[in-house]
Amino acid sequence: MSTIWKSRYAQRTLGVKSSAIRELLKVTQRPEIISFAGGLPAPDVFPVKRFEEACHKVLSEHGAAALQYGATEGYEPLREMIALNMARYGILAKPENVLITSGSQQALDLIGKLLINRGDHVLVEAPTYLGALQAFDVYGARYLTVPVDQDGMITERLEVWLRLGPKFMYVLPNFQNPSGVTLSEQRRHELILLSERHGIPIIEDDPYGQLRYEGEHVTPLVVLDRENLRRDNGFTMGNVIYLSTFSKTLAPGIRLAWIVAPPDVIGKLVQLKQGADLHTSTFNQFVAYEVARDGFLDQHVKLIREVYRERRDVMLQALHEYFPPEVTWTHPQGGLFLWVTMPPGTDSQALFQASLAENVAFVPGDSFYANDGREGGRHMRLNFSHSQPERIREGIRRLSVAVKMQLHHNHVAV
Amino acid sequence: MSTIWKSRYAQRTLGVKSSAIRELLKVTQRPEIISFAGGLPAPDVFPVKRFEEACHKVLSEHGAAALQYGATEGYEPLREMIALNMARYGILAKPENVLITSGSQQALDLIGKLLINRGDHVLVEAPTYLGALQAFDVYGARYLTVPVDQDGMITERLEVWLRLGPKFMYVLPNFQNPSGVTLSEQRRHELILLSERHGIPIIEDDPYGQLRYEGEHVTPLVVLDRENLRRDNGFTMGNVIYLSTFSKTLAPGIRLAWIVAPPDVIGKLVQLKQGADLHTSTFNQFVAYEVARDGFLDQHVKLIREVYRERRDVMLQALHEYFPPEVTWTHPQGGLFLWVTMPPGTDSQALFQASLAENVAFVPGDSFYANDGREGGRHMRLNFSHSQPERIREGIRRLSVAVKMQLHHNHVAV
Repeated sequence: MSTIWKSRYAQRTLGVKSSAIRELLKVTQRPEIISFAGGLPAPDVFPVKRFEEACHKVLSEHGAAALQYGATEGYEPLREMIALNMARYGILAKPENVLITSGSQQALDLIGKLLINRGDHVLVEAPTYLGALQAFDVYGARYLTVPVDQDGMITERLEVWLRLGPKFMYVLPNFQNPSGVTLSEQRRHELILLSERHGIPIIEDDPYGQLRYEGEHVTPLVVLDRENLRRDNGFTMGNVIYLSTFSKTLAPGIRLAWIVAPPDVIGKLVQLKQGADLHTSTFNQFVAYEVARDGFLDQHVKLIREVYRERRDVMLQALHEYFPPEVTWTHPQGGLFLWVTMPPGTDSQALFQASLAENVAFVPGDSFYANDGREGGRHMRLNFSHSQPERIREGIRRLSVAVKMQLHHNHVAV
Repeated sequence: MSTIWKSRYAQRTLGVKSSAIRELLKVTQRPEIISFAGGLPAPDVFPVKRFEEACHKVLSEHGAAALQYGATEGYEPLREMIALNMARYGILAKPENVLITSGSQQALDLIGKLLINRGDHVLVEAPTYLGALQAFDVYGARYLTVPVDQDGMITERLEVWLRLGPKFMYVLPNFQNPSGVTLSEQRRHELILLSERHGIPIIEDDPYGQLRYEGEHVTPLVVLDRENLRRDNGFTMGNVIYLSTFSKTLAPGIRLAWIVAPPDVIGKLVQLKQGADLHTSTFNQFVAYEVARDGFLDQHVKLIREVYRERRDVMLQALHEYFPPEVTWTHPQGGLFLWVTMPPGTDSQALFQASLAENVAFVPGDSFYANDGREGGRHMRLNFSHSQPERIREGIRRLSVAVKMQLHHNHVAV
């Protein structure tokens, strides 16, 4: 069934395809399946009651303003609150450094729109967040990839690519999606030095930074950035754009995130956002402000940390109990995901099919590689935030059955 | 103050500038100014109480789902409701023909992304909606323009441009922004015939269609489209993509609109939307569904019609009383705007400055012309939905002072 429109699609759309994860999530929504596939927060910790009170307050006190068109930059009190909150992590942004976006996905889209000419190189981690690749692909990005180990992106492998002059580096330093690893403090310093030496700026994507379950907070890149340290009064010249979100701390269904950048970048992003969706929902911004204020956000993040820490521990324990010794996995200090590595020769797509037969699901690793999915062939991403502990144990048990069958099959095949 | 980023902006951003209206709205927000400049709905008709009840219901009954990530296509019950509502206007869409967007501005952005290669021609009305130009500009559109008279786009002027093969036509048939005029039934038939003959599809933007204050409903282009009439079962092959929104019937602050298109187009737009913002706020979609259901939307639209009809009439009456006879204006049968035409030689920017001195504001016409702002030099767009009737009368009185001074000045200058 073809229409007049198909022949008119722009060149940029030809390479755009639906995310493999998206197709896969449809399969994994059957109730009998225990899914570690989505990147979903636990709905049982959504602060529903607090949202109800906030909606009541916003509508009874500010109904006319909250339902009206708003400024593209975002709701001023929310921008101020975000700036204040970030200051505790050393990020000395002022409200004019903050642009509210319709989720971090829009932040990535606006950044792609702002910076990428067709054919430009963008440096990303291997593996990296799939949604960033989707956002950048449409603007014609090509990728340079740097592998990740237990300490995050291997910065020693960086310099050779930086000489090729990528437009920017896209990095997830904390509890990276999909691998769960955190970029070490030492590598953060190296990364900033290399960024300055080669004049290649950085997009620091930090959706999970507050969700740390053990270990010490590591300084954000945007704070290490020496251009920012030279600031006199708020940061105005930085080489790092910082992204974060309320999706993992309040709720993803309100689609609220933010970009921190120098004012001239914010100004240009505001123009692009105006053409993209005018502004983010005024109502949701008012509501999020009411939900988060008076210390509620901090208190709620503590609760989330407790719940997710337990789930991570249950998953780690179950992996230890059920999985064969040839299989390894990361030990994330925070976030939502861990990353399992199978012996060479494993086909994670075949394993995925075998797992479905056992009523358990994950995301095969190949989706997370910008250039060569084969690198991901023996990995799987497991989400530990969404399922209840007893479901996690049972899911890992089921998964271990599929894994053992697959390893046996490999063995026989060899 | 320049940063590392500036030298890295993509080519597409070079022509992007902040909308003149946006800059101008900042000036006009001073409380002493009566502003006819914004395109704002009246906050006094927002159904605040109904929103409060809906938020309560959604959060107490569906909190976990409403605050979670959702499908890119949109919330299924809302898509079904939209499809049902449109059927009353003859638009026989099924839910799979409907994509929920984050306001109509996102619909325009996604359509630009889907269809426009740099340098492509897009045919638009002169004047046309500024936000569409902003959305299409970033993808490198060039424009062919067809003038508008009391019956909408002058279709006799169309054929010469269609031979140049524009990618699509962008048309606002009902109570056009900015002119307030409506495309006549006869011209709609001509437009559809020309579209078919030349194989040039149409984007029909209809944010105001339900807000008719007099006269008979005119058949939408999407219904006249013969490709659609050939459908067996819902429309699958149409040459018209139809856009509408809840911004003018419920509230703009929830950023909810929709695209109606053949399934293959919806499929591609879903992929692009996934990269752009994953999905529109789940929470707002649940809430809008609860607000609109059980006939509330229809009943509320009736109220809006009454309120806006009165304001339009007050503005028309005041123009008649205060304005000099050389000045003319449109008589919109619906919508939010009317369009004032001054004698040749008037400079609407100078008039704008003179009006600010009288504490009244409007949008100078030049902003609404894709190619040559000079065409708009003697026009002004006046919004009649936002201000209370007594403010409208006083605003038009003030504006008439500035207009008369300006005409006198012209006269002296000649």
